[in-house]
Amino acid sequence: MGMELNETSAGAEGLLAEGIDTPCVVIRSEAVDANIAAMAAEAARRGVRLRPHVKTHKLPELARRQVAAGACGITAAKLSEAEVMADGGIGDIFVAYPVVGAAKARRAAELAGRVRLIVGVDSLAGARQLSAAAEAAGLALEVRLEIESGLQRTGVPPEGALALAREIAAMPGLSLTGIFTYRGAMLGGAPTLDLRAAGHEEGRLMAGVAETLRRGGVAIRDVSVGSTPTAVYAAEIDGVTEIRPGTYVFQDRMQTAFGVCRPEDCAAEVWATVVSRPAPDRIVIDGGSKTFATDVQPDKPPLHLQGFGRVIGLPHAVFERMNEEHGVIRISPEDTCEPGDVLRIVPNHICSTVNLHGSVYVSGKSGLRRVPVAARGCIQ
Amino acid sequence: MGMELNETSAGAEGLLAEGIDTPCVVIRSEAVDANIAAMAAEAARRGVRLRPHVKTHKLPELARRQVAAGACGITAAKLSEAEVMADGGIGDIFVAYPVVGAAKARRAAELAGRVRLIVGVDSLAGARQLSAAAEAAGLALEVRLEIESGLQRTGVPPEGALALAREIAAMPGLSLTGIFTYRGAMLGGAPTLDLRAAGHEEGRLMAGVAETLRRGGVAIRDVSVGSTPTAVYAAEIDGVTEIRPGTYVFQDRMQTAFGVCRPEDCAAEVWATVVSRPAPDRIVIDGGSKTFATDVQPDKPPLHLQGFGRVIGLPHAVFERMNEEHGVIRISPEDTCEPGDVLRIVPNHICSTVNLHGSVYVSGKSGLRRVPVAARGCIQ
Repeated sequence: MGMELNETSAGAEGLLAEGIDTPCVVIRSEAVDANIAAMAAEAARRGVRLRPHVKTHKLPELARRQVAAGACGITAAKLSEAEVMADGGIGDIFVAYPVVGAAKARRAAELAGRVRLIVGVDSLAGARQLSAAAEAAGLALEVRLEIESGLQRTGVPPEGALALAREIAAMPGLSLTGIFTYRGAMLGGAPTLDLRAAGHEEGRLMAGVAETLRRGGVAIRDVSVGSTPTAVYAAEIDGVTEIRPGTYVFQDRMQTAFGVCRPEDCAAEVWATVVSRPAPDRIVIDGGSKTFATDVQPDKPPLHLQGFGRVIGLPHAVFERMNEEHGVIRISPEDTCEPGDVLRIVPNHICSTVNLHGSVYVSGKSGLRRVPVAARGCIQ
Repeated sequence: MGMELNETSAGAEGLLAEGIDTPCVVIRSEAVDANIAAMAAEAARRGVRLRPHVKTHKLPELARRQVAAGACGITAAKLSEAEVMADGGIGDIFVAYPVVGAAKARRAAELAGRVRLIVGVDSLAGARQLSAAAEAAGLALEVRLEIESGLQRTGVPPEGALALAREIAAMPGLSLTGIFTYRGAMLGGAPTLDLRAAGHEEGRLMAGVAETLRRGGVAIRDVSVGSTPTAVYAAEIDGVTEIRPGTYVFQDRMQTAFGVCRPEDCAAEVWATVVSRPAPDRIVIDGGSKTFATDVQPDKPPLHLQGFGRVIGLPHAVFERMNEEHGVIRISPEDTCEPGDVLRIVPNHICSTVNLHGSVYVSGKSGLRRVPVAARGCIQ
């Protein structure tokens, strides 16, 4: 089975003959490499560092491919994710999340003894714990201050950044070297499809905060921004030094709807078997909410995705509902689709979908390999 | 740490001192035992067999507790889940799902050589594969026909049941011994809060189908119905022989809203640390959609749950939004809640929440034990 899967290859039956059963995630390696190369080229062209978020694939081997293709290091969301990647040979890791708690601060200090580690901070409480742990370990822990830029989750608002940055910069054991934010595709506080304007707004906001901090006496070197839809545009703004896209490695139905990629760039699919056709216009597949993530719901702005995924080869099918082990798809009564057929589906959101799977199957010239999702469930 | 957690015990700090970090699932063992005993008593009082669905806990040790408390066996959704439970010492397993595919049929036959196994069927295609695999293995595989009873997913409609049942009953290698359905809390085709009427309707429909099959010459012994909200009412109908509730073992916020249990009966909680309070009315916890399931969304009928979980001790808090690692909770500006605080949260849907976690922490008289979720991710 040396065939490379593409949008039109049937494939499924041959691969299932190799002993792989459904439902499962199949990753098309050639498409992954093309996505990795394309983003690396975009970052290089704009003169910013690329630090991909590994939360999308959770696979050390893909993190290594990203670094080999020019990434300066990786981004992780949690320390446990970073620890797995360090074990997998990655030597430069940014935990882009406020690390809070004495136990986690000690783990951060331990990890900083093994790799170049940068951690996020957005509160005095968190910074003090990191400071104490770093001092106890006898090292200078590199931290970046998270800036709230419109998503209304973590991060200090720009107007509070200078006061907090000064306090953190003065703490022993810490080295405040940068600021970061994440907000995805937002413009003027609302979700948007105008990715260029969104990226420019994000970049300008962050470059402005960095300037404010520098004028206030805090030496800010790194200005780090998101995200697959906006990164290449934010990178066009002077002062932005680093981008942290994640989803681009696989792309997904959400990114396709954003216009970030073509359908055929989606490198990760779920394969599922039709287990029932109880009505002419309804089939049920053997994957539900334990197989496909439900965090990106249909019909939500700005994308208004119809259903939970795109069924390759059945353009009018609507993946309407899920229970844990059932996926209910509305089809046309004329569609030929019977129990036993295997469908290939591009999920709405690939990152949280991969997180459901203990292993994935990576296709390539030499066939399919089963690869454990080493950083699956790394929430701590 | 011999303290038993309850609704009012602070607990979190002491347990965290034992080296457990957030976010994590904590299971209160005493509440589990009370839930197991209560459902066993309900089933016994009504003279039906109890065959709990293990998809809620995914833990062989809790399946064994259920059997020890009187369950006739267990229910699983997928063969892989059944295989884990067989390995864990469970000897009587019903896979309440249409098993489709030649490879799965062979696995079913293999498992039927180790334990008493019953599998679901709702199509000729699936039945033929099971028949062939059972014949090849030289055994009579017990199957039950799934009946569509209103949920519009898998199952043959009642009017088509007799014809299909006759064909399946005639197949070599198969022993058609029962019918089953699942529909949750539905009445007259729509979601309902009238659980008694819903359960009675479900029970009458299934008893009626069983009678039709018997009159048509198909010997139907077992008539098996769902679900935590409706099981005890369906069991009141003559002809129903078995109930398959799952969620009752832990209960959850959905069941509390159904009125099935009290808030303090919820035996599984997520513990999460506040990592940021970027505004007086907003906190962010270190658990998002990789920690709490998103399949039961807020504001959906019939329950209209507000937010993604109930925050114990903060009755007015609304768990409004999640990203993968962020949970955004709206609180009152007067609430004292700062980075580092640990919150206990009862999720909307505990089954799919447990599925996200590689291990859980089970509390008891002798403290907290870390238990791997052996059947996590068993989707195949």
